[in-house]
Amino acid sequence: MAQDMTLLWGSGSPPCWRVMIALEEKNLQGYNQKLLSFEKMEHKSQEVLDINPRGQLPTFKHGDITVNESYAACFYLESQFKSQGNKLIPDSPAEQALMYQRMFEGLTFYEKLIAVVYYDWFVPEGEKHDSALQRNKEVLGTELKLWEGYLQKVQMTSHLYGSIQKSPFCPTFLCFRRLSAERYPQLGKYYALLKERPSVKASWPPDWLEDPKGQDTLKDI
Amino acid sequence: MAQDMTLLWGSGSPPCWRVMIALEEKNLQGYNQKLLSFEKMEHKSQEVLDINPRGQLPTFKHGDITVNESYAACFYLESQFKSQGNKLIPDSPAEQALMYQRMFEGLTFYEKLIAVVYYDWFVPEGEKHDSALQRNKEVLGTELKLWEGYLQKVQMTSHLYGSIQKSPFCPTFLCFRRLSAERYPQLGKYYALLKERPSVKASWPPDWLEDPKGQDTLKDI
Repeated sequence: MAQDMTLLWGSGSPPCWRVMIALEEKNLQGYNQKLLSFEKMEHKSQEVLDINPRGQLPTFKHGDITVNESYAACFYLESQFKSQGNKLIPDSPAEQALMYQRMFEGLTFYEKLIAVVYYDWFVPEGEKHDSALQRNKEVLGTELKLWEGYLQKVQMTSHLYGSIQKSPFCPTFLCFRRLSAERYPQLGKYYALLKERPSVKASWPPDWLEDPKGQDTLKDI
Repeated sequence: MAQDMTLLWGSGSPPCWRVMIALEEKNLQGYNQKLLSFEKMEHKSQEVLDINPRGQLPTFKHGDITVNESYAACFYLESQFKSQGNKLIPDSPAEQALMYQRMFEGLTFYEKLIAVVYYDWFVPEGEKHDSALQRNKEVLGTELKLWEGYLQKVQMTSHLYGSIQKSPFCPTFLCFRRLSAERYPQLGKYYALLKERPSVKASWPPDWLEDPKGQDTLKDI
């Protein structure tokens, strides 16, 4: 039981989900948790700011130690609980290199996804351009084709595929449910595999259950 | 000697420099290297694309293993050469957590820096807005004040300061030379410490020697 851990989180946020999946994978259930609302701006509340000066979720503490960045929390948990639960970092040099490589490439994918999904939200009126959104969509499409190719190769060796499935970058790819599985069959298969993983099921964000339709923004990518 | 390693790099790129510093810290000198020109678009050459489908630098190989993402390469090198040279990841849980945390926060800093430095370059004509650049500058200023505060605290314990100095996120902060040391005294001190580190000196990018003036874009941040 992880009673000396506290997680403040928001539903549907891939970084929050990443930490929750890592906690499940490391058998660290039973931590203190509080679901906060992004809509009500609770991530900017004093409760969060006291632990996380950026006013972001997740906000994570283990005893006196604070690790708010989601990937940082995953690395920290893996390092502190190496022999507990599932390994998040594979042993063999080749698998390890691939996992690190895809993990950091996943940040690039996420950035490109955000640039499309939140374009309307983060670009102020008067600075919006259809040409910019169109370009962001094309960039995202190219990125997705790259991942299709990666997964095509990796499926040939199911061992590697397993490593990637367990890795902390996987929540980013749960966003694939928003995409056309016909256009991106490998990503569709990967999403189908991920969502059956016990750690993913146990931490499925409530918002995603309520909104099975997905976001229209991604329908033409 | 690291003769089974190959690095294709571009001068002045913090991600390339990050890998070079990590190689120095791990006593992995003597690797094969090739300096390519961003201006001549050599990062999009077939030589790079064969190893790195993103057409980016750094492009790094160790034997048959490719790890192109700079942080991924640092993690990989630390893991494969744990007992060689300097440790890039500290042992104690508190120091480790802080190092991971600042490392991933460093990505956020870098993103905000890029949004100012390359605004003119990456935003097409017709989509540029003074209001957007101004906002990006304010966001960067807020970010820098946060780091000033972090360094103020960390200097109290020189041990922790040492860990951060060795960590793979340091090259991002070598960009501080572009900033006013009067306005950001802690960052100024940190920069002064970093630039004297042997691994940093040994890998100082030639472009930075030729252009001691710095970029005007940052003078009013």
